Amino acid sequence: MTVSRAVELEGHIIDSGMMQSCFGVIMDMGGSFEVEAFDIGRSKTDASYARLVVSADTQSDLETIIHELHQNGANPVDPRDATLDPAPADRVVPTGFYSTTNHPTDIRFEGEWVPVEKIEMDCAVVVELDGNDQPVHAQAKVLTAIEEGDLVVTGETGIRVRPPERPRESAGAFGFMQGGVSSERPSQSTISTIADAIVETKSEGGSVLAVCGPALVHSGAREDLARLVRDGYIDMLSAGNGFAVHDIERDLYGTSLGMNTETLDHPRRGHKHHIYAISEVIRAGSIEQAVENGLIESGVMYECIKNDVPFVLAGSIRDDGPLPDTITDTLEAQNAIREQAHEADMVLMLSTLLHSVAVGNCLPSTTRVVCVDINPATVTQLLDRGSAQAVGMVTDIGTFIPMLAEQILDSDE
Amino acid sequence: MTVSRAVELEGHIIDSGMMQSCFGVIMDMGGSFEVEAFDIGRSKTDASYARLVVSADTQSDLETIIHELHQNGANPVDPRDATLDPAPADRVVPTGFYSTTNHPTDIRFEGEWVPVEKIEMDCAVVVELDGNDQPVHAQAKVLTAIEEGDLVVTGETGIRVRPPERPRESAGAFGFMQGGVSSERPSQSTISTIADAIVETKSEGGSVLAVCGPALVHSGAREDLARLVRDGYIDMLSAGNGFAVHDIERDLYGTSLGMNTETLDHPRRGHKHHIYAISEVIRAGSIEQAVENGLIESGVMYECIKNDVPFVLAGSIRDDGPLPDTITDTLEAQNAIREQAHEADMVLMLSTLLHSVAVGNCLPSTTRVVCVDINPATVTQLLDRGSAQAVGMVTDIGTFIPMLAEQILDSDE
Amino acid sequence: MTVSRAVELEGHIIDSGMMQSCFGVIMDMGGSFEVEAFDIGRSKTDASYARLVVSADTQSDLETIIHELHQNGANPVDPRDATLDPAPADRVVPTGFYSTTNHPTDIRFEGEWVPVEKIEMDCAVVVELDGNDQPVHAQAKVLTAIEEGDLVVTGETGIRVRPPERPRESAGAFGFMQGGVSSERPSQSTISTIADAIVETKSEGGSVLAVCGPALVHSGAREDLARLVRDGYIDMLSAGNGFAVHDIERDLYGTSLGMNTETLDHPRRGHKHHIYAISEVIRAGSIEQAVENGLIESGVMYECIKNDVPFVLAGSIRDDGPLPDTITDTLEAQNAIREQAHEADMVLMLSTLLHSVAVGNCLPSTTRVVCVDINPATVTQLLDRGSAQAVGMVTDIGTFIPMLAEQILDSDE
Amino acid sequence: MTVSRAVELEGHIIDSGMMQSCFGVIMDMGGSFEVEAFDIGRSKTDASYARLVVSADTQSDLETIIHELHQNGANPVDPRDATLDPAPADRVVPTGFYSTTNHPTDIRFEGEWVPVEKIEMDCAVVVELDGNDQPVHAQAKVLTAIEEGDLVVTGETGIRVRPPERPRESAGAFGFMQGGVSSERPSQSTISTIADAIVETKSEGGSVLAVCGPALVHSGAREDLARLVRDGYIDMLSAGNGFAVHDIERDLYGTSLGMNTETLDHPRRGHKHHIYAISEVIRAGSIEQAVENGLIESGVMYECIKNDVPFVLAGSIRDDGPLPDTITDTLEAQNAIREQAHEADMVLMLSTLLHSVAVGNCLPSTTRVVCVDINPATVTQLLDRGSAQAVGMVTDIGTFIPMLAEQILDSDE
Repeated sequence: MTVSRAVELEGHIIDSGMMQSCFGVIMDMGGSFEVEAFDIGRSKTDASYARLVVSADTQSDLETIIHELHQNGANPVDPRDATLDPAPADRVVPTGFYSTTNHPTDIRFEGEWVPVEKIEMDCAVVVELDGNDQPVHAQAKVLTAIEEGDLVVTGETGIRVRPPERPRESAGAFGFMQGGVSSERPSQSTISTIADAIVETKSEGGSVLAVCGPALVHSGAREDLARLVRDGYIDMLSAGNGFAVHDIERDLYGTSLGMNTETLDHPRRGHKHHIYAISEVIRAGSIEQAVENGLIESGVMYECIKNDVPFVLAGSIRDDGPLPDTITDTLEAQNAIREQAHEADMVLMLSTLLHSVAVGNCLPSTTRVVCVDINPATVTQLLDRGSAQAVGMVTDIGTFIPMLAEQILDSDE
Repeated sequence: MTVSRAVELEGHIIDSGMMQSCFGVIMDMGGSFEVEAFDIGRSKTDASYARLVVSADTQSDLETIIHELHQNGANPVDPRDATLDPAPADRVVPTGFYSTTNHPTDIRFEGEWVPVEKIEMDCAVVVELDGNDQPVHAQAKVLTAIEEGDLVVTGETGIRVRPPERPRESAGAFGFMQGGVSSERPSQSTISTIADAIVETKSEGGSVLAVCGPALVHSGAREDLARLVRDGYIDMLSAGNGFAVHDIERDLYGTSLGMNTETLDHPRRGHKHHIYAISEVIRAGSIEQAVENGLIESGVMYECIKNDVPFVLAGSIRDDGPLPDTITDTLEAQNAIREQAHEADMVLMLSTLLHSVAVGNCLPSTTRVVCVDINPATVTQLLDRGSAQAVGMVTDIGTFIPMLAEQILDSDE
Repeated sequence: MTVSRAVELEGHIIDSGMMQSCFGVIMDMGGSFEVEAFDIGRSKTDASYARLVVSADTQSDLETIIHELHQNGANPVDPRDATLDPAPADRVVPTGFYSTTNHPTDIRFEGEWVPVEKIEMDCAVVVELDGNDQPVHAQAKVLTAIEEGDLVVTGETGIRVRPPERPRESAGAFGFMQGGVSSERPSQSTISTIADAIVETKSEGGSVLAVCGPALVHSGAREDLARLVRDGYIDMLSAGNGFAVHDIERDLYGTSLGMNTETLDHPRRGHKHHIYAISEVIRAGSIEQAVENGLIESGVMYECIKNDVPFVLAGSIRDDGPLPDTITDTLEAQNAIREQAHEADMVLMLSTLLHSVAVGNCLPSTTRVVCVDINPATVTQLLDRGSAQAVGMVTDIGTFIPMLAEQILDSDE
Repeated sequence: MTVSRAVELEGHIIDSGMMQSCFGVIMDMGGSFEVEAFDIGRSKTDASYARLVVSADTQSDLETIIHELHQNGANPVDPRDATLDPAPADRVVPTGFYSTTNHPTDIRFEGEWVPVEKIEMDCAVVVELDGNDQPVHAQAKVLTAIEEGDLVVTGETGIRVRPPERPRESAGAFGFMQGGVSSERPSQSTISTIADAIVETKSEGGSVLAVCGPALVHSGAREDLARLVRDGYIDMLSAGNGFAVHDIERDLYGTSLGMNTETLDHPRRGHKHHIYAISEVIRAGSIEQAVENGLIESGVMYECIKNDVPFVLAGSIRDDGPLPDTITDTLEAQNAIREQAHEADMVLMLSTLLHSVAVGNCLPSTTRVVCVDINPATVTQLLDRGSAQAVGMVTDIGTFIPMLAEQILDSDE
């Protein structure tokens, strides 16, 4: 005895690999299928359509296959509602909870598809009902945010995922953002295209989040990043304690990690400058107060303060100090990062693995991402997250930022 | 007019490069010197002695030079006392505070040299006095631990640093621990020597701290590390949330990062196993309770619980979950790591940059360190901290741990 | 006015991505298509079939599209013959010559499909005719081997390429050989599977080619590789001058690059051992004579001589010496490597980029390849060649070879 | 019974580490010593002087120690002549021949010190005598260049090596060229200093050799390197077949490795462009003829032809083609590289390990070297050769060359 159910695929289903992965799912999981309808788009912009009848030996096997197809973009012709179970305690999800991907997701409640808000990967989906048991909204929640009684989606039915399609050719500067990584791509042309994408995002009213590692300061790119902040191309900044410390060290002592970034000298005792910088800011009370006191007179943090660019400094166990502004609780820091991530239309990941992963964890797959690092392994790891519009560049942040700043200011005129 | 002062150097002053660096300090800082006495050790084990009269143009220049020489192991013939100033507020050091190195350090109080306890780099030195204003002890304190009124060493006088000498040849297994990094060294012989060093440390009653990254689990080395814990070769464990999660995922679902580490299969939905593992432990309450419940039945964390091996799981902003055992406040986590670091006689840094740096920040330069990573840049960065007994190996943690376990059990019989 | 032509696809056309790439070709090149027939395999082992009518604006556009489809495995329903033009001079190909891929290829001559022998990438195809103008055979030839008058395939018609299908699941040890690269895969399990694949190749009467870099000797893996040669698991060896020099240095002086690979000592003047080793072999006349003289008494080269395992030592501009056995002309060396590559059923690329690329350039895409290096970029570059049965492992060659030797001898019993 | 001999050290013997390494040699080799005189330079520019009496148990031990001290810059107070033995056959050195370092070296003949010409590492020293048995000159010769009867220096006496001193501070742009490698140094400032060093070399009438890898073309830096050739800042070029092929491919087809370096497009069949480029140059006869024919109209090779900048294209076993200009015999290619190396006053190693090692093998330690690569391991390996004036930079060649060109043209005005 076999049981069957029909599913549909729609969109650029061959081009995007959706059909290939759906066929793979069925065969891997011991199912079989028949193609009932297959209508192929004739041109790049036409959508295609396919309807498959999927069969399996047991109802349970079939449901598992259907669920997995759902995750890959194929939807049952006769969808069912999602199952909801209350969380038994704070931070405890019901058994069998559905763990999210970072793709746009809907859940089905009383016959209606409800979009899941603030989608990100590895979350539970919590549905909030109004007085009449109608869903007010569905939202992705990390495990630590679950509260007793939250209605959590469990099981495998009624969950629809829409993996991003990668159109073969797209208008505008983001057309190139599908290309993986290479250290052998033309550097200047790639930087110029990234500059265009930033300008385009800003001209569309979008918000740009810069995620910054300390190498940015050591490599001498600080001044040009500060210009980009001052001129309004960076709307939010996410970094660690070390980035801010070295940025301020450069202002107070002219060094970064003890080296003068202009003369390349290593003044004696320069290796103590970062700890002195920290103690000066502690004395002032905060970065903002140190700027207002006139202690800090230039740099990226200075421009953030002066131009009301909000920043999150997330603490880590390797921090010196830390600065008073650094959020030392990692859950609290994650929440601050999460807000930035969901607000951003474009994210620049600049020479930091830890902070880029933290931001990337909170991003839906539809956000534009640019990742720049001199280590190819870092770039590969960051891009390998199913994002539809992500581009990586293996280059020197110390030459990238100045060239980017020059390009943006040129294209700006 | 010039001012002068005599300093002495003692020990393996040429062999260790101490003399070279002291000459460099004087010349870099615009001073001059005369060699008054120079008595060179005749053999590898003999110490040498030199006395220099250092001159500078001003008293202030001279003191700065003398201070810097002090940091490099040269001591004034006529030492002066350290200056103490009270901290004006909690977490605020007095201006001009002395920031520590990770080398053994003494400060001079009323003519007596007092050793600084719990030395680590980038700290302040706080002196505690008894009722008669005699120093009870001096201790290194991180900035965040400073309390209002603490007597903090400031200025440049009365501080003596003893950088470790690197004897040309030393007895026992640690003789090799001076050698820098190479990916082209004989792997089996190096592993065998590291095994000897661990066995030697244990036979001397020493304590071994393992700092573990998640790659250790992904690469299939978990079972052999668990054996080392069970058999008493690991006394403390320091890791992040991810290491424990994947170790437990392997126990509960047979996978690590979704891959079966024995069959190399990727079961469907394997990528959700880690989040299920976390939610199961949250449900149980803690790792210890999950072991006691019988939920967790094997692995590194299991052996830690069963064998009373204390562990610190430090949180980071990229954590999923986290587990209930993970310390999410980074300052609290640093303090827990600090205690481990000061208790350890030997530290194994195994495939984690973040946690190894955090531990390394708290280590005195006299602790034995072994650093293993497949990325040469990680090994180089970790060894570049002035440790006297540190060895790095660029290798695959997934073959290193099994070979190490085999070597230790062989040498054990 | 549009022109049209029908093409067919057969095999695992969705699973292997063939259909996706054919659709992409047509759309990229401005064509359109209609699906006339589409019969999808129901299970993993069933083949599928599709027939498309492809249309374009001009005959020339259509032919270019058809050619490109051919390269991706789609064949015209009404194929045409290949065009042949004579080479105008030695080493000079006729204009518009067809440059090969490394996939199995046929060319069509008077209505018959003739397989191209010794296929490798970036070659011309030369057809040899008998007295009656019938093709004796077609063969891939590198540009430097072209002789005046050779009949060379030009243009785009009559050329059929069969890209390897990657079956979802295959019997035997080679099932795993589709998996790309990772430094985070379980090391011991992967090594064990590679060992099985070598044993299987040998048990099927296949021939194993080892491509060896000098790191193999420096890292202490020489003795275990020598055992594999002695026990008959390596049928051919391809290396550079440096590999042989350090292997012999180890035999004559106990060092490799001047370091004793067992004691880890660096004897004084050890850095001159390699040049002494070279001069001793020059004095003897050849490696074979040095073995027969009793000068060389152990090692990989020794076992090759003793067990009649043929080797190619290819020269490079960074060679010291070189040894008398080293082929200093790179074209001559390429030809020697080419013969090895075409004879091999399985190739082990061990810690050498230069020699692995040279061998890889000559391999058809159907040969089994295992690539091992500690640098992930090297492994990625080597696997990125369209091979159907290639696996990469990022690990330490100094632990890999001993574990592999142990596995093979175990599985052998 | 012990035997003794006095040696002298002169120069910046502490600062340069010479004294430290000499003490190490004596103690490592079981000798002992007494310091008879020790006169230390008072300032950075003053030289120091030391005289040691070295003792050992046997005459043979003593000579070995003295020889090793000689290699480290310490010279016997009572020097002896070098021993000369004739080479028994072509390419065969006499037993016990002295193998050179890359430091300036003299050999002693009848009481006179004769400088060794064309010094490079791993060579034999051959002395040519005139009719009266007086040395015409001494010269370093690679093993393959040795001819029967050549008088070769053997044994350990009469050989003086002068390792370069690294003065703490030197005038001019080359002051910075002592600094090792870092990916965390300020990029723009470092590029600016390298630009100054090139301009200084040219203004002193020196000769600049560029060693170029194909990544230079892929990364889009070709046009700016061509400008530097055209404007006279590159006097010689050393590269492989691939560099020239991709440079010419870019000119003929607008692509490099099949990618358009400006638009970032991948035209269909672009991956065949390099082989077409090769066949076109073969058809023309040579690069020079292809330029004269008007086939090649731009690029680095074009500018070399037009501006009489001599180039060496050295073959390797991974070459496609090769071009008619490529020297396929590696010994012949080494000799061509050797001539370039000995003529160069400054060498730029740009994104190629193989060719940089080949050039580096032929360089005396006194030549200025700049090494640029995005892979830190490559830079480290290239700098680790005892050169006195070498600087490494870990950066993206695709941003480095444009910034360098801009700096040089600016500083030129």
